Amino acid sequence: MTERRIYLEDIPLTEAQRRLAAALQAAGRWEPLGVETVPLDQARGRVTAGPVWAALSAPHYHAAAMDGYAVAAAATAGASERTPVRLAVSGDGPARYVDTGDPLPAWADAVAPVEVAQTSGPSAQPEAIELQAALAPWAHVRAIGEDMVATELVLPANTRLRPVDLGALAGSGHATVSVWRRPRVAVIPTGTELVQVGRPLKPGDIIEYNSLVLAAQVEQWGGVATRWPIVPDDLAQIVAAVRAAATEHDLVLLNAGSSAGSEDYSARAVEQVGTLLVHGVAVRPGHPVIIGMTAGQAGVPIIGVPGYPVSAALTAEIFVEPLLARWQGQPAAAPPTLPATLTRKVLSPLGDDEYLRVTVGRVGERVVATPLSRGAGVITSLVRADGLVIIPRHHEGYDAGATVNVRLYRPLETIERTLVVIGSHDLTLDLLAQRLAEYSGEGGPVRLASANVGSQGGLIALRRGEAHLAGSHLLDPETGQYNLPAIRRYLPETPVVVVALVGREQGLMVPAGNPQGLRTLADLGRPEVRFVNRQRGAGTRVLLDFELGKIGLPASDIPGYAREEYTHLGVAAAIASGTASAGLGIAAAAQALGLDFVPLFKEQYQLVIPQVYADSPLLRPLRAALLDRTFQAEVAALPGYEVSGMGTIVAEVP
Amino acid sequence: MTERRIYLEDIPLTEAQRRLAAALQAAGRWEPLGVETVPLDQARGRVTAGPVWAALSAPHYHAAAMDGYAVAAAATAGASERTPVRLAVSGDGPARYVDTGDPLPAWADAVAPVEVAQTSGPSAQPEAIELQAALAPWAHVRAIGEDMVATELVLPANTRLRPVDLGALAGSGHATVSVWRRPRVAVIPTGTELVQVGRPLKPGDIIEYNSLVLAAQVEQWGGVATRWPIVPDDLAQIVAAVRAAATEHDLVLLNAGSSAGSEDYSARAVEQVGTLLVHGVAVRPGHPVIIGMTAGQAGVPIIGVPGYPVSAALTAEIFVEPLLARWQGQPAAAPPTLPATLTRKVLSPLGDDEYLRVTVGRVGERVVATPLSRGAGVITSLVRADGLVIIPRHHEGYDAGATVNVRLYRPLETIERTLVVIGSHDLTLDLLAQRLAEYSGEGGPVRLASANVGSQGGLIALRRGEAHLAGSHLLDPETGQYNLPAIRRYLPETPVVVVALVGREQGLMVPAGNPQGLRTLADLGRPEVRFVNRQRGAGTRVLLDFELGKIGLPASDIPGYAREEYTHLGVAAAIASGTASAGLGIAAAAQALGLDFVPLFKEQYQLVIPQVYADSPLLRPLRAALLDRTFQAEVAALPGYEVSGMGTIVAEVP
Repeated sequence: MTERRIYLEDIPLTEAQRRLAAALQAAGRWEPLGVETVPLDQARGRVTAGPVWAALSAPHYHAAAMDGYAVAAAATAGASERTPVRLAVSGDGPARYVDTGDPLPAWADAVAPVEVAQTSGPSAQPEAIELQAALAPWAHVRAIGEDMVATELVLPANTRLRPVDLGALAGSGHATVSVWRRPRVAVIPTGTELVQVGRPLKPGDIIEYNSLVLAAQVEQWGGVATRWPIVPDDLAQIVAAVRAAATEHDLVLLNAGSSAGSEDYSARAVEQVGTLLVHGVAVRPGHPVIIGMTAGQAGVPIIGVPGYPVSAALTAEIFVEPLLARWQGQPAAAPPTLPATLTRKVLSPLGDDEYLRVTVGRVGERVVATPLSRGAGVITSLVRADGLVIIPRHHEGYDAGATVNVRLYRPLETIERTLVVIGSHDLTLDLLAQRLAEYSGEGGPVRLASANVGSQGGLIALRRGEAHLAGSHLLDPETGQYNLPAIRRYLPETPVVVVALVGREQGLMVPAGNPQGLRTLADLGRPEVRFVNRQRGAGTRVLLDFELGKIGLPASDIPGYAREEYTHLGVAAAIASGTASAGLGIAAAAQALGLDFVPLFKEQYQLVIPQVYADSPLLRPLRAALLDRTFQAEVAALPGYEVSGMGTIVAEVP
Repeated sequence: MTERRIYLEDIPLTEAQRRLAAALQAAGRWEPLGVETVPLDQARGRVTAGPVWAALSAPHYHAAAMDGYAVAAAATAGASERTPVRLAVSGDGPARYVDTGDPLPAWADAVAPVEVAQTSGPSAQPEAIELQAALAPWAHVRAIGEDMVATELVLPANTRLRPVDLGALAGSGHATVSVWRRPRVAVIPTGTELVQVGRPLKPGDIIEYNSLVLAAQVEQWGGVATRWPIVPDDLAQIVAAVRAAATEHDLVLLNAGSSAGSEDYSARAVEQVGTLLVHGVAVRPGHPVIIGMTAGQAGVPIIGVPGYPVSAALTAEIFVEPLLARWQGQPAAAPPTLPATLTRKVLSPLGDDEYLRVTVGRVGERVVATPLSRGAGVITSLVRADGLVIIPRHHEGYDAGATVNVRLYRPLETIERTLVVIGSHDLTLDLLAQRLAEYSGEGGPVRLASANVGSQGGLIALRRGEAHLAGSHLLDPETGQYNLPAIRRYLPETPVVVVALVGREQGLMVPAGNPQGLRTLADLGRPEVRFVNRQRGAGTRVLLDFELGKIGLPASDIPGYAREEYTHLGVAAAIASGTASAGLGIAAAAQALGLDFVPLFKEQYQLVIPQVYADSPLLRPLRAALLDRTFQAEVAALPGYEVSGMGTIVAEVP
């Protein structure tokens, strides 16, 4: 345990990169790894290993550029409407029929297009043509070398071959092309707790998908990946796997075991097969990154990749991508960046380069970036990320409202077609996201990026101009009205449209069979209950407090009232896993996780849309979906949902 | 011949697209074509055919988020430095050692990280831990569903799967994913004149590479392409090929024969197998585009692609890409656009949508777009293009200096790393382009985009701010000096640096063996000579006129003086092909095409660089290359080249 820990360094990222570069230079692996010759039909996406010079001119003969008659330009001199020139048609001239692409006879240096050549004689075999205008030499002729002249540079080295490049290579006389060899990368997953994708699981088992992601990244970056079978936490086996991989690969990725815990063998394995250059880099997520080289003159680099999936994927982006690019004669990827306004304050530890995942959307004139979960285990934070904000190590973070540079993961067009929804969570939003992703009308699919911060958080986001709309079900304790009082309070200066989404039942989610026999809200006061709550500002929390007030049950009497989850499904998951015995939420979430549901209240879940966006093209697909019967039926099929008013305007608040 | 012509329409592009869409809708082929299930390790780049919901929560159990001791948070209440809490370590609690990722025992709801747990007893097997601070419930625990909750939406339909998406699918309990079937596209090259890539050629033979380009485009756009063997110009054989292809493919591309000439069978073939919807679209290049459907309820679309390579590639971009995107649930590609200043006036015929190829570079504050060859047969115009300017059909073109929108073919970063060289052509520029493409220093490779407009054209381009530098060898007839007088004349207000590139021999290029026995410039006046000249403003032309003046030979006495080529290689190619018997040019061009060379003069070829760019980072790799001995040796190996001063500053003209 503690005594078995290896010291974990915390060296700056740039120093880690420098050590890797120096080691690769020393091993003669800092340049592309070799050349291979491939036929053109297999060369798309490959990178030229040297300049390609034209072996042939294109065209390689003087070619008719149009259908018409090959003539000597000199023979047409003086032709006019009044004094047309008549030329007999024959194989030897002075005029001969040619199709586009036919070679010009030696005696010809121009083509009279059929459109200007009046024929006489039988139409199938004209005897002569008449021209009413002179032709310049080389008129309607594609002269030798018009496109490429033999010996000319067709493509420089380090060109990633596109389809048209293949055409130019073929047209200049090449049937094959020399390209850089694709780097071969071994991906070795280690860990006794790992289980292959698709196998049954028990608690403690971890689905081994890092090698899937790493291999796909390698292939995406032009490498060839080999996924090793899972190696258990056994130093000898890990060493054997690394040794075997290093003989046939240019790079070994050793996944997990890179930290300093009792079962972290990666650093020791690297020491056994060669030199440990780096153990721990001050980058987050990612800290326990290992860099080493196998022994010998031409050592093979080994990168120990941390086990948390976000750390693993980002470690590959930071260390593997630039290396594979380099080995293919390319500069490291330079994703487009976009300045954006950060919606929340972010504190970042001094000394670490932090890679913050954000969603990005254009809301009105501003591009806003909203931080996602910073957990290294939350792969959905990478899936949902539109980009990264890199917070440098000398920086303590940013205030809300700061302008940051986002390295985009998605094309700008996708960002422009992103509907930013911040507020309360409802399962209908998932169905809606799905619907909009399938939208095939004008402008194409719309991406719905939703952040679940509760109803109140959503209204505040609208006030700050951070979202196009908010989902809300905020009950006003005084009037019993939904949303409108809160809208007046939080959005006094923003005219909004309130659109009905669904009516839904709120009630107690309890384990299947309802073992504690909970029937009413008052039952939450029973001492054996372990409640799980929603966060402050959530509509469900407001509803709970309102109803508790009505029956006079103090929050402090409810065991677990302080434990908070951010979504209905989060609450349901807590109950399903046995760590809580009750929560307030919606029927659909209960059903999704096989829980029982005790209906207690009905509530209105609505969409709050600032007037300025209500009729914008980006919202059109959403408005259409809400009024679509098929979509309504899909939502109505969820338990506890009522869709009769869906899509109708409940109120316009000026 | 003429009587066999089929009427070629000229319908607007939008109408052609409408007819294709209507026919596909009628045939039930307007939506994705089908679904298939693939294992995750083969799913990268594929597109989800439906939403994917989490089958499992992730984590699927409460997991230790750090190495440490699982405890019940309640048992740590009140712990402080003064009153530490001591907990015995055992399998059943109150504290148990856990590695990161281990499941929490049922009695625990928090983890005390090893860093904060003081152990006592033997260090390999501590008997107890002491904590000096209380832990909150769920501290250092990854609760069930922290990443994904079962039933939650993981990915919407129509998501193109990235490596991290595969991780999320695996982590939420999936081993496979349903994706849209890849569209199958047959590419049928037709034409008796076509010859397979790599085969020997005779005049009139055309290397068949359109199918190579089209197939690569199809694969790039997510389809599966089948390249058909070449079909000769025979209606029955073409019809048979189309019928066979349509049975197993979703789209048939019939290449060439789409015009209205005597050997253009495509339209007739389409009529025999089904319906001809469009024959001729008002788009250039591309005019003779055919669209049709095979007969039957679920007809298969056929696109007749024009034969000129630029037309073929652009027709695919216009008609095939959006269709393949649609069939994969994606919007058509929307390449990034960039406003740029057009450097030359462009006239475009009314009624046609023109796709103008341009090179693009940032010169100072401006982004400039320079039109490339508009020839439909010049594939290098596509290879060299940085983007397209689309001139709409109701538009007659643009003046020089107009702001146009460029649809970019290359990433913006490449554009920003492009050195724009306009001026005289020299082979050294090709070697330099090559050198800069291999540059691996700071900032990475630099792309050299050169336009050959002659020395004088280059100086004018510098004056207009359209280039970073110009190659020039302009002899001043009065002073015998190179470049400086011309620089003072054309660039009176632009401070420039003049850098020596090469000294080179100019002389007569003549066919091998010098059959006309040309020895001096005066020999050009002999009547049997067929001269080929360089264009006005070319340094070689100025030199010629200067030297002709010295010997008193009038230009009008030289047969062929009026025939112009734009490069040394162009002149050499004219002689090599036998259409000219002499030209003035450089030894290297003569040698490249196997010509003889009669040296006559020595001249200085220099680079003229505006002072503002001379020290800019973009030019640093170029300056470095010129001073590099290896590079100098490479240039010196060219015949007639002298590199002694290469890279030195000849003059600074303020």
